[in-house]
Amino acid sequence: MKKIVVLGSTGSIGTQTLDIVREHQELKVTALAAGSNIELLEKQVREFLPSLVCVYNEEKAKELKENIKDTATKVVSGMDGLIACATESEAETVVTAMVGMIGILPTIEAIKAGKHIALANKETLVTGGHLIMPLIKEKQVSLLPVDSEHSAIFQSLNGEKKSNVHKIILTASGGPFRGKKLSDLKSILPKDALKHPNWAMGQKITIDSATMVNKGLEVMEAAWLFDVPVEQIQVVVHPQSIVHSMVEYIDGSVIAQLGVPDMRLPIQYALFYPDRMTLIGGERLDFIKIQQLTFEEPDMDTFYGLKLAYKAGKLGGSMPTVYNAANEWAVAAFLKGIISFLDIPYIIQEAMDHHKLITNPSLNEILNTEQETYDFVRRFAKSV
Amino acid sequence: MKKIVVLGSTGSIGTQTLDIVREHQELKVTALAAGSNIELLEKQVREFLPSLVCVYNEEKAKELKENIKDTATKVVSGMDGLIACATESEAETVVTAMVGMIGILPTIEAIKAGKHIALANKETLVTGGHLIMPLIKEKQVSLLPVDSEHSAIFQSLNGEKKSNVHKIILTASGGPFRGKKLSDLKSILPKDALKHPNWAMGQKITIDSATMVNKGLEVMEAAWLFDVPVEQIQVVVHPQSIVHSMVEYIDGSVIAQLGVPDMRLPIQYALFYPDRMTLIGGERLDFIKIQQLTFEEPDMDTFYGLKLAYKAGKLGGSMPTVYNAANEWAVAAFLKGIISFLDIPYIIQEAMDHHKLITNPSLNEILNTEQETYDFVRRFAKSV
Repeated sequence: MKKIVVLGSTGSIGTQTLDIVREHQELKVTALAAGSNIELLEKQVREFLPSLVCVYNEEKAKELKENIKDTATKVVSGMDGLIACATESEAETVVTAMVGMIGILPTIEAIKAGKHIALANKETLVTGGHLIMPLIKEKQVSLLPVDSEHSAIFQSLNGEKKSNVHKIILTASGGPFRGKKLSDLKSILPKDALKHPNWAMGQKITIDSATMVNKGLEVMEAAWLFDVPVEQIQVVVHPQSIVHSMVEYIDGSVIAQLGVPDMRLPIQYALFYPDRMTLIGGERLDFIKIQQLTFEEPDMDTFYGLKLAYKAGKLGGSMPTVYNAANEWAVAAFLKGIISFLDIPYIIQEAMDHHKLITNPSLNEILNTEQETYDFVRRFAKSV
Repeated sequence: MKKIVVLGSTGSIGTQTLDIVREHQELKVTALAAGSNIELLEKQVREFLPSLVCVYNEEKAKELKENIKDTATKVVSGMDGLIACATESEAETVVTAMVGMIGILPTIEAIKAGKHIALANKETLVTGGHLIMPLIKEKQVSLLPVDSEHSAIFQSLNGEKKSNVHKIILTASGGPFRGKKLSDLKSILPKDALKHPNWAMGQKITIDSATMVNKGLEVMEAAWLFDVPVEQIQVVVHPQSIVHSMVEYIDGSVIAQLGVPDMRLPIQYALFYPDRMTLIGGERLDFIKIQQLTFEEPDMDTFYGLKLAYKAGKLGGSMPTVYNAANEWAVAAFLKGIISFLDIPYIIQEAMDHHKLITNPSLNEILNTEQETYDFVRRFAKSV
């Protein structure tokens, strides 16, 4: 029996994680956490019977408490509640599937409590990699990536010596606007940007895919996960999303991981590693049907959010936090119709230009940088 | 210092193995063997200074002995000489790069003498896999494939549990006649068949690629090397020869090994495993330049030599020997202009139909089956 906690259980990764749990009697959920979707959370509590559940929103937490008072599940709320879930005593592994920088503190506390991490929250490493990675080593827990690209890199590194790696090739679908130029993207509406060609995901990450900021965050995440500088990570556009990523070794040999675009595959892999399990209801690749896999150079002039990510990753310190926070605010503003699509990378760039770099920031400095970035971009967006 | 023996040193794989040795001071050649090309062999002796050299042809051996009497290298000949090289006392690893069934006995003796095998001689496993594989286990030596496809499978299995394998996907370039039908292949001449689109190789293997018999031999070889039935090996035509082969796992995840078509890559990998070395003068893959990788179903009606390989592999016992010997004879006859291109699979089919299967044949029975097959196909070819 493997006991797990799912933070962000009502989101896309969270619900798919629970799909995997449903199929495997050897998995048991001991705690769940979500932001505010208590309708779905109640169903999950009744099905998976965790001992602890957190609703980040305090009002909603009270409501859920009332609604599930017939169960044995304890309801907690806020950051303290989230940390209580992340450190739930019986769990071995914590799946961090919340969106945004809210994930850093619970992840740090989970590691300190000796939990293995199945990481689906990119922001944790992007902004706090310099704090997380040494802690992972110190506590000798494993950090298994759930993102399909990072899982692919992890699988392509399996059994190989780190010193033999020449570079990482991170594939990108290119999103719904692949091939477009800046002038084509002026009047993009949220509904256009929310149409991803291959993956069904949450709203935030779908917009991030359209701007290629998602790929930028992945570059920074991969740099921490696999201990390589961002310059050693090449983004290649691969519209079919079949090759999930690759590793090139010093001898020129390239190992790639391929699969149908189905997030349950990397989630299950992270939960059972080093074992593999048949994926219930999963499709298999059929190369005869696929016929072709294509590759292109990313257009970093149009999707310059990706170029900015390399800059932020190279500068390091607090700059990735600025990149991430500015983007988080800008995506939310775009979805509300407050700013235009092309304002997203522009706002990131302005926020980065305005920021005074802190090298090796503490957790507090990271969280302050996040707030300051929000404040700056809010003011900046009003002024333009 | 790693000491190696190269059997078949004047052939395509042999000379490329010596290219690798030339670049790495940590490799030393202790013995070389070739069939009859004593001009090249003499050069190799003077460059690599082995203690022992075998010329299979006795007359040519005498000639070489005379020509290199100023060196300290001992010259031997015939099968005894080949075995003396294969078991040379100082060597750790024997590279078996000779063409044909001549490789079985020296390979067996090398394993018995505790040598690791870098296997480039497919016929060894195709015809004697049931003798070789248990011996490899018993003597606890390693058997590392040098064929690019088998090296790719080996690399794709690295770090993974055997029980997690769902199937092996063996890629094939399709050869120079990909897309042709039987009626297009009636008057093919040796010079047409010797033009391989991607790989520069010896004559025998180039014709085998044109008939896809080479892929058939590789299916049978892979079955022994990776302990899977031939039915679990899928051949997929991939004209670019970039994806060298793949492994599909039970969860649907596929691991692939890719690289430029350069035999020095798998040779070097086999010699240094588990280390990797920079490939001197090697090209790197550039996915932006490659642009696309395509996949097709093999046409087993036209290239029915491949279909026959599945049949031979499934029947097992002495049948793969019949398949291989009939093909060996037929390819030689085709190159001499004695038979037509389409006679090659036809002769294999007739030889297999005519053969009375021996299950679990001894080495003697394998060698007798080879001779009987040669006799049969010689008579048969005259009669048609």
